[in-house]
Amino acid sequence: MIILFGVFIRYDHESDAHWVEHRKHLNLTDIENDFYFRYPSFQDVHVMIFVGFGFLMTFLKRYSFGGVGFNFLIAAFGIQWALLMQGWFHSLDYTDGKIKIGIENLINADFCVAGCLIAYGALLGKVSPVQLMVLTLFGITLFAVEEFIILSLIHARDAGGSMVIHTFGAYYGLSISWMLYRPNLHQSSRLQGSVYHSDVFAMIGTLFLWMFWPSFNSAICDHGDGQHRAAINTYLCLASTVLTTVAISSLFQKHGKLDMVHIQNSTLAGGVAAGTAAEFMLMPYGCLIVGFCCGVISTLGYIFLTPFMEKRLKIQDTCGIHNLHAMPGVIGGIVGAVTAASASVEVYGHEGLVNTFDFEGKFKDMVPTTQGGHQAAGLCVALCFGIGGGIIVGAILRLPIWGDPADDDCFDDETYWEVPEEEEEGIPTVLQYNNHMRNKDIGEEQQINHDPIRSPLAPSYAPLHQHLKGGGDTIQARDMNPRHGDKNRAFTPISQQRPLSGTL
Amino acid sequence: MIILFGVFIRYDHESDAHWVEHRKHLNLTDIENDFYFRYPSFQDVHVMIFVGFGFLMTFLKRYSFGGVGFNFLIAAFGIQWALLMQGWFHSLDYTDGKIKIGIENLINADFCVAGCLIAYGALLGKVSPVQLMVLTLFGITLFAVEEFIILSLIHARDAGGSMVIHTFGAYYGLSISWMLYRPNLHQSSRLQGSVYHSDVFAMIGTLFLWMFWPSFNSAICDHGDGQHRAAINTYLCLASTVLTTVAISSLFQKHGKLDMVHIQNSTLAGGVAAGTAAEFMLMPYGCLIVGFCCGVISTLGYIFLTPFMEKRLKIQDTCGIHNLHAMPGVIGGIVGAVTAASASVEVYGHEGLVNTFDFEGKFKDMVPTTQGGHQAAGLCVALCFGIGGGIIVGAILRLPIWGDPADDDCFDDETYWEVPEEEEEGIPTVLQYNNHMRNKDIGEEQQINHDPIRSPLAPSYAPLHQHLKGGGDTIQARDMNPRHGDKNRAFTPISQQRPLSGTL
Amino acid sequence: MIILFGVFIRYDHESDAHWVEHRKHLNLTDIENDFYFRYPSFQDVHVMIFVGFGFLMTFLKRYSFGGVGFNFLIAAFGIQWALLMQGWFHSLDYTDGKIKIGIENLINADFCVAGCLIAYGALLGKVSPVQLMVLTLFGITLFAVEEFIILSLIHARDAGGSMVIHTFGAYYGLSISWMLYRPNLHQSSRLQGSVYHSDVFAMIGTLFLWMFWPSFNSAICDHGDGQHRAAINTYLCLASTVLTTVAISSLFQKHGKLDMVHIQNSTLAGGVAAGTAAEFMLMPYGCLIVGFCCGVISTLGYIFLTPFMEKRLKIQDTCGIHNLHAMPGVIGGIVGAVTAASASVEVYGHEGLVNTFDFEGKFKDMVPTTQGGHQAAGLCVALCFGIGGGIIVGAILRLPIWGDPADDDCFDDETYWEVPEEEEEGIPTVLQYNNHMRNKDIGEEQQINHDPIRSPLAPSYAPLHQHLKGGGDTIQARDMNPRHGDKNRAFTPISQQRPLSGTL
Repeated sequence: MIILFGVFIRYDHESDAHWVEHRKHLNLTDIENDFYFRYPSFQDVHVMIFVGFGFLMTFLKRYSFGGVGFNFLIAAFGIQWALLMQGWFHSLDYTDGKIKIGIENLINADFCVAGCLIAYGALLGKVSPVQLMVLTLFGITLFAVEEFIILSLIHARDAGGSMVIHTFGAYYGLSISWMLYRPNLHQSSRLQGSVYHSDVFAMIGTLFLWMFWPSFNSAICDHGDGQHRAAINTYLCLASTVLTTVAISSLFQKHGKLDMVHIQNSTLAGGVAAGTAAEFMLMPYGCLIVGFCCGVISTLGYIFLTPFMEKRLKIQDTCGIHNLHAMPGVIGGIVGAVTAASASVEVYGHEGLVNTFDFEGKFKDMVPTTQGGHQAAGLCVALCFGIGGGIIVGAILRLPIWGDPADDDCFDDETYWEVPEEEEEGIPTVLQYNNHMRNKDIGEEQQINHDPIRSPLAPSYAPLHQHLKGGGDTIQARDMNPRHGDKNRAFTPISQQRPLSGTL
Repeated sequence: MIILFGVFIRYDHESDAHWVEHRKHLNLTDIENDFYFRYPSFQDVHVMIFVGFGFLMTFLKRYSFGGVGFNFLIAAFGIQWALLMQGWFHSLDYTDGKIKIGIENLINADFCVAGCLIAYGALLGKVSPVQLMVLTLFGITLFAVEEFIILSLIHARDAGGSMVIHTFGAYYGLSISWMLYRPNLHQSSRLQGSVYHSDVFAMIGTLFLWMFWPSFNSAICDHGDGQHRAAINTYLCLASTVLTTVAISSLFQKHGKLDMVHIQNSTLAGGVAAGTAAEFMLMPYGCLIVGFCCGVISTLGYIFLTPFMEKRLKIQDTCGIHNLHAMPGVIGGIVGAVTAASASVEVYGHEGLVNTFDFEGKFKDMVPTTQGGHQAAGLCVALCFGIGGGIIVGAILRLPIWGDPADDDCFDDETYWEVPEEEEEGIPTVLQYNNHMRNKDIGEEQQINHDPIRSPLAPSYAPLHQHLKGGGDTIQARDMNPRHGDKNRAFTPISQQRPLSGTL
Repeated sequence: MIILFGVFIRYDHESDAHWVEHRKHLNLTDIENDFYFRYPSFQDVHVMIFVGFGFLMTFLKRYSFGGVGFNFLIAAFGIQWALLMQGWFHSLDYTDGKIKIGIENLINADFCVAGCLIAYGALLGKVSPVQLMVLTLFGITLFAVEEFIILSLIHARDAGGSMVIHTFGAYYGLSISWMLYRPNLHQSSRLQGSVYHSDVFAMIGTLFLWMFWPSFNSAICDHGDGQHRAAINTYLCLASTVLTTVAISSLFQKHGKLDMVHIQNSTLAGGVAAGTAAEFMLMPYGCLIVGFCCGVISTLGYIFLTPFMEKRLKIQDTCGIHNLHAMPGVIGGIVGAVTAASASVEVYGHEGLVNTFDFEGKFKDMVPTTQGGHQAAGLCVALCFGIGGGIIVGAILRLPIWGDPADDDCFDDETYWEVPEEEEEGIPTVLQYNNHMRNKDIGEEQQINHDPIRSPLAPSYAPLHQHLKGGGDTIQARDMNPRHGDKNRAFTPISQQRPLSGTL
């Protein structure tokens, strides 16, 4: 990676020390450096990628480390690779064969990584870090090609990446999940849920994604009105999705209770769908309509579609990315095509139309209706790359060399992380003492209890004791999973036994 | 909502596609689009509203979902309604009867919602989501009217909203809380506290509010020095409040220990009080004085006033908004009036004075002393609207149709949310097995223990078993509340019993 | 403090109301106010100081309040004192003897505080808040002097503060820790670890530090290309560090598991090392190399050096700041010196060279090689001030008047905070009932069990009961620490006993 960077990557003219001369030459002021147009949005996007996606995936009770940690790992790896791949396709300076990077490249690299993180959402807890690296490596390569085709060759516009990022990423992940189907995943179903505080952590992710989505969709829009409009559109879409999600969630749950899964995920669907059309004159009411539809579809997807997909289509989708990214992404692509096709000089003004749709250079004769067709073509390309690429990469990931976890170790941080012993919770340990002592007392030490009157008690304690013995590792003890009973683990760490021995 | 937006709301000229033409006409550059002046501040305010207020309210041990989730819901609903209401009063374009929105409207909508979220703070845990929607609907309507009167008719300045947002919002919430007084709230007092990690979550809220408060107060100030000065003033106020709060908290607690409630809340009082005068030449030492006073008053309020209000005035104020928003808001209004009245040409310069106090148009003959009077009048209007509006809306919310929780279900997420079963904690479950097994063993299965020697043991186990049976729902089991003992709930979910049965 | 601010501190011309006149005079537009160049970066730095450093220190299982709370306290105190101290050295207006503050001063104050917070990292959990205030008071004074010598007298460049902030802060903290060595710290080793959710909280800190580090390093760079380049350099450094850290962590842990301590800390080392050279033409591949080296050194430091330092050098470094700040800071200083020395007109352009290294005024004849020497001199000054200052302040802090915690109360929030009773966890309480009841039953109430057959049971229960009795305070009960057994604490709070008595 260092060598590739050494050979190819240089600063662009806005981040190079020659900017002072360049600026004077063009009669610009420092504030017109692209940095000041895009840096705040870049940081917001950065927060979405690392905190937003990362914490959104902490909802599992015992996979929070993996959720946020592997997200961190693949994002950090991905942005480097993306700078190279996207650079070759988009920012290559043909005069010297170097890639010139500036703040916009960093944003694009973050976008590119987002696609892979979405795919990770479907696979959360079921793949090894090495598999994730492979997924990211291929994912970003595919992304760069797909993006080049959609944006440069087809000349579709996709400011917020409904098609390029979300549709591609989601179908890429779902296809891989389909290839890696685990029929015995129920063996770790005990860990496939949340606990109270892990749901609150996930809300951190949700809220940062929700709040900064306007920055996501506006980050690489045109300076001026483009960024301004994209932010407003996305903001309205998102606000409307929240209300719809709450309403639908309450309607379809028993007793009208709200489900945290919907609040954490479906509320974001509006932002996804606003992606392609963010820059266009979608109109405030149009945003509300898009947000409303996405909220309905996404929430219903969580209630009906995800269980169906798991049972019938053999697609295990841990985070429900089909509802959060795939369907809203496709909707976003369609909305973009329709909005583009119906653009008119009255609404945009002549210069506005050219500026918004970039009808320049070899596309200067395009008209909005053609643009609509190109948008639709872009959506198809994204779908094909997502599904096709996913199947190929999924096949690669099925090779038995990647160290993926066993079915009953899924969703468990123990497999890849040093997990602190939960002394704090204290209770399994206490119980062990409790039983240990009792048992020792009853069965091992004094052997006095073997009188016929007490005997009925002993067998009833024994299994529990045995059980807890197997779960000497406190974290797994919680799960009360019988498989642990087979292993001969240390009863309790010595350091924990000491205090008790002291009192005995 | 969609229809209203369709009829009324359009982009303003800075977010419309005609910006390109508009810009050339006025000889501006893209960077002078209001977006670049305000977008970073907008995002900070956005974070305050959703993460700041949301997480500040997660401190309750079993109402974190409600705190952050309902905050999310009413904020998302509120901003849509606020765009309409504030639009009618402030941004209506009389040429075509449309509301033209840009980034400043989004900030104002967030501000407007802040008022309602403050009110929610007083009612946290005691109202239903439907009541919150009603509260927000009326709150935002009242807010828009009050804001129009204070800012446009009276021509008071209130950049950070000490009066318009905080004083109004707090008294609105307190009046509603007074109308909805629950004499038997002590029935859920077991849940009216924090746990270790919920306090850490609340610190996320506190810190984001604290850090971004300079953006809150500077977001809609004048371009240039106005925003710059507001940020500095607020920063200094807040820094000084933290020290005072820590000192007072330590002085008045037994053993000099610090109380998290004060650190989470009173440290923010300085930002509230800096609101009105943020734009003025408050002077750095003036900021420290304001911050000092607020820290003292707010912390003492938590120690002495909140218990007094609950006992004597029958106002139950869950988050202590009287100490965090009401009193500092009033102080802020007074500080604003005094600072405005004492403004002079020496300090501001002539153009600075006109620019800061907006002595233009029909107010071009105003002098600072008059402005001071107008500021005071604005404060009174905010108080009247808050108290009056709160009483009316409180009366509406007392109607028995809104599905508010029973006294002993307050502060409990179970009422409105699907709460995950806390298998992780694992212990009540384990205990149940423990006792269940023992009990089954003793009493049901083998019936051997009914010999006279063992019998004394049996009755002593029975009540515990019974008790835990009632608490089969693990979360409530924790509270060891006898009322649960009466209900005949399922003992343990089947899925959890299985492993045990396996070992038996 | 108020008096000092009153005497000395005023607004600078960009935040003063005279800006309108000043702006017209210089023919600037509002957007060229420094506020718009630096405010977004300032807010990011602010987040790093309060949320980043604060939450990074929440990883201890029972010192989260202290981590985030005292961080808040000393940062809020520090920025006020830093505005004064740095003001006297850097921003004093000699015409009227006032310090003129603007947004850049606020950023510098945050930087200054960062040095003290780094020092706090070494002492986390072992010092009292009063000691922290003293540490901050002297630390900031030393910082201001050291910064003046390095940046103004020696004319070294240090945009991101590798030397000025990190090297100084880390050695300052380590020296103090050495002076305050506690040979019996193992008495509180039960608390010197993390729990699952405290590690997730720490990840919030890590991620916000990681994401916003580009803002940290670019915040006070030159407008235009300087800020732009610093952000890119830091971003690349950090990305490369993450990969290296993960690889090294996995290599050196048994079973290839990842250690959260490394992920939380070493991933940030690249940002520290990129500090000095951030503004220079470090080149993208150079950044990757720096990041790679730091990741290796920092992670190995955690694995090998920290235990060695604790055992042999008698330096107890709670957060491992030697690995995160000290070593990467020194590397950063060296990288800065080398990069500066090898700067050339070909790479920078003539104007770029002058602009980047500020070869103006009395330094206008300097050449890059000399600049490299000055950089190295700056690093030495930072080291001397850090170690020397730390030893002196450490000696002061050893005085027995500061109320530092006893060896077995370290890392325990109970000492300085009102910690909520953990009813929620509920289990120790339940167990107490369990045993209490049984015991009462067996031993006290009915005294029926004293038949010879049952008697072996009684002594085995007794110690546990006794033990749990000692731990009636539920939080400490968890630790199962024998010292608690000696104290005669109340058995259980009455309110908790009631329900049980009811059922009995």
